[in-house]
Amino acid sequence: MKQSFLFTKTRREAPADEQSKNAKLLIRAGYIHKEMAGVYSYLPLGLRVLNNIIEIIRKEMNTIGGEEVLLTTLQDPEIWKKSGRWDDKDIDIWFKTKLKNGGELGLGNTHEEEITALMTEQIASYKDLPQYIYQFQNKFRNESRAKSGIMRTREFIMKDLYSFSADAASHNEFYERASLAYEKIFAQVGIGTKTYRTIASGGSFSKYSHEFQTICETGEDIIYIDDKKRIAVNKEVYDDPEVYATTGIDKKVLRKERAVEVGNIFTLGTRYSDALGLIYKDMEGKNIPVFMGSYGIGPGRIMGTLVEVLSDEKGIVWPEAVAPFKVHLLALAGVDEDIRTYAQKLYEDMIKKGIEVLYDNRDVRAGEKFADSDLLGIPWRVIVGKDTLTSGNIEVVSRADGTTEKKTRAEVLAL
Amino acid sequence: MKQSFLFTKTRREAPADEQSKNAKLLIRAGYIHKEMAGVYSYLPLGLRVLNNIIEIIRKEMNTIGGEEVLLTTLQDPEIWKKSGRWDDKDIDIWFKTKLKNGGELGLGNTHEEEITALMTEQIASYKDLPQYIYQFQNKFRNESRAKSGIMRTREFIMKDLYSFSADAASHNEFYERASLAYEKIFAQVGIGTKTYRTIASGGSFSKYSHEFQTICETGEDIIYIDDKKRIAVNKEVYDDPEVYATTGIDKKVLRKERAVEVGNIFTLGTRYSDALGLIYKDMEGKNIPVFMGSYGIGPGRIMGTLVEVLSDEKGIVWPEAVAPFKVHLLALAGVDEDIRTYAQKLYEDMIKKGIEVLYDNRDVRAGEKFADSDLLGIPWRVIVGKDTLTSGNIEVVSRADGTTEKKTRAEVLAL
Repeated sequence: MKQSFLFTKTRREAPADEQSKNAKLLIRAGYIHKEMAGVYSYLPLGLRVLNNIIEIIRKEMNTIGGEEVLLTTLQDPEIWKKSGRWDDKDIDIWFKTKLKNGGELGLGNTHEEEITALMTEQIASYKDLPQYIYQFQNKFRNESRAKSGIMRTREFIMKDLYSFSADAASHNEFYERASLAYEKIFAQVGIGTKTYRTIASGGSFSKYSHEFQTICETGEDIIYIDDKKRIAVNKEVYDDPEVYATTGIDKKVLRKERAVEVGNIFTLGTRYSDALGLIYKDMEGKNIPVFMGSYGIGPGRIMGTLVEVLSDEKGIVWPEAVAPFKVHLLALAGVDEDIRTYAQKLYEDMIKKGIEVLYDNRDVRAGEKFADSDLLGIPWRVIVGKDTLTSGNIEVVSRADGTTEKKTRAEVLAL
Repeated sequence: MKQSFLFTKTRREAPADEQSKNAKLLIRAGYIHKEMAGVYSYLPLGLRVLNNIIEIIRKEMNTIGGEEVLLTTLQDPEIWKKSGRWDDKDIDIWFKTKLKNGGELGLGNTHEEEITALMTEQIASYKDLPQYIYQFQNKFRNESRAKSGIMRTREFIMKDLYSFSADAASHNEFYERASLAYEKIFAQVGIGTKTYRTIASGGSFSKYSHEFQTICETGEDIIYIDDKKRIAVNKEVYDDPEVYATTGIDKKVLRKERAVEVGNIFTLGTRYSDALGLIYKDMEGKNIPVFMGSYGIGPGRIMGTLVEVLSDEKGIVWPEAVAPFKVHLLALAGVDEDIRTYAQKLYEDMIKKGIEVLYDNRDVRAGEKFADSDLLGIPWRVIVGKDTLTSGNIEVVSRADGTTEKKTRAEVLAL
């Protein structure tokens, strides 16, 4: 894409009321736009990053047998009353609205109730199990504090998967498979080494759940890491002796870190299938409640975490797998038509080679191009200048570590 | 995909309270699930169709220079007060909700206000124009009647594009380009010959807007068609003599039809740029309000229209471009392991060839497979039975017209 085509501009300053590093940088770079506290729009470059993250997640969910659906935002109070979660005292972050004809509706803050009710029409027998259903759908949460940029928002896309198993044993088998898929996702988006499966508090059916926590100075959580076992304990269960008794973790070796939750997996058991009547007939014809789990990842939260964790004083640093483009091609042409022609031809050849490239063809100073390029954080900066025409060399700079190499045209086209 | 993998089942009966043909068939076939009146979830097959339609639209929007963004559902009342559309008297289909900390929010029923306010940060000079911004985003509309299945819902995905031009002349040029793109979209999804650009009432800036209306017995609109000019007039402006004076349409030749609106394009002029202060400096440095247009298509409404218009007494009939799969492979195996093996191998080879195929590998009667296949509406039914093993012939049936051909294995793999 030519940069002149892009309607977004970079900005020197973030909005004065924006406190978080991720939102400041993403707004300045033109990736997102702040509508209100905790409510952000995604602009073209930001949507590309978000969609890249979504595609990585989708692929892994399909690999573990997930089937994609799209549930609704508007929620029928009746199903939430059955599970005892309609009252604002039970869920304190509800957004609710009213039908014109009368009657309240909820805006989905999660989708256990809706998917469980839906599955009562699809699951009748043990032959219909297991099932793994997922979606990418907006969640709405009436947060009283929304100061962490796109890490904690009032409206955000979440990937939520729900598993439906015949019993705890087959549930546990899938739970571990989902956990491995999550680890693969975090590795692919570039936070694998900084992310730990973390024991956290559970619910009515399992004493513990698991979070995936990424070490991050600005994270809202505190975790305690066992480096050898590559596992962590969330502060909320750190003082529970059972954690250590059941897992063999040695409390003494743990080191404390600030972290951000980038995913969670949860054994729901029959909490929702009991409430909403999701039962199946086993081989003897006996009615058994379906054993459920839920598995969440917020692509926007991952995007924010990447900015918090990887950016430097000059701007954003995207891992290649999620970057809006792989290459940022800068023509330092000035009034030199030959340089412009060379860069334009290189741009066209990159596209032919299938290289995702943003081409800064704008008529602005070199310094401005460099500063914008640092801010945007595209992994490889390819610079065509005077030297290119005389020596044939093209400068290639890595955004992550700043290393610079002279490459030939053929080498650049093999990036 | 193997049909045994699919969690959805076909149903003999639609919900008793469902009146529309599109929802009845789509629910029976397992494409959608009704949550409440006017609120539907998309199940795996339905989501595939919806996404195919979305991709066709996206490609055409990119071709005419559109840049994709993702705006928000939660709406700041302040911007709607500026345009005078916050009050329920001005927009009577608002869903509104409340922030925990106090203050009302709206759920986006359209996005003119939000995109106009956003663009005040991006457009400053004539050099920044024109811009064409689009999104696929949910709209929420508090409809008092919601009886048309997925044709008129309280929550639905819409593609809305907004154009920002320097003046009426350049706006008009893009408006015609967008109109042609819409015609291409309707042709690709399979309703081109039944769809007419239709003159309809306008707003404060243009006396008329244009709708795209598809002839449909169950449509909510009445249009009057000029067959020679391939243009129509909506009932709402049918008695306005200016329509005929300005367009040269002869009222006498028009024929009346019932139709459904599948898209609309609208000249907004400076209605929103005036209200929200979206101005640019022209070449002389003078402040000029940006000239806007809006362009909407509902992918779900198109999906519903296809079912209303193309289905027959046996079920749905999808055009190939939007079908969830191109081929429905039926193994009529019974207890015959050889037939099953043959079908399985053919399925694998189809996938290698890149043919999108749903393989009915289920252990059910042939009659049930045929009935389900008719209901699902996949364009090509490929039947492997006893005859296949003896003669080498494979029966291929067109869902659209029922024609049956015997084909060789190689011919089937070239479908």
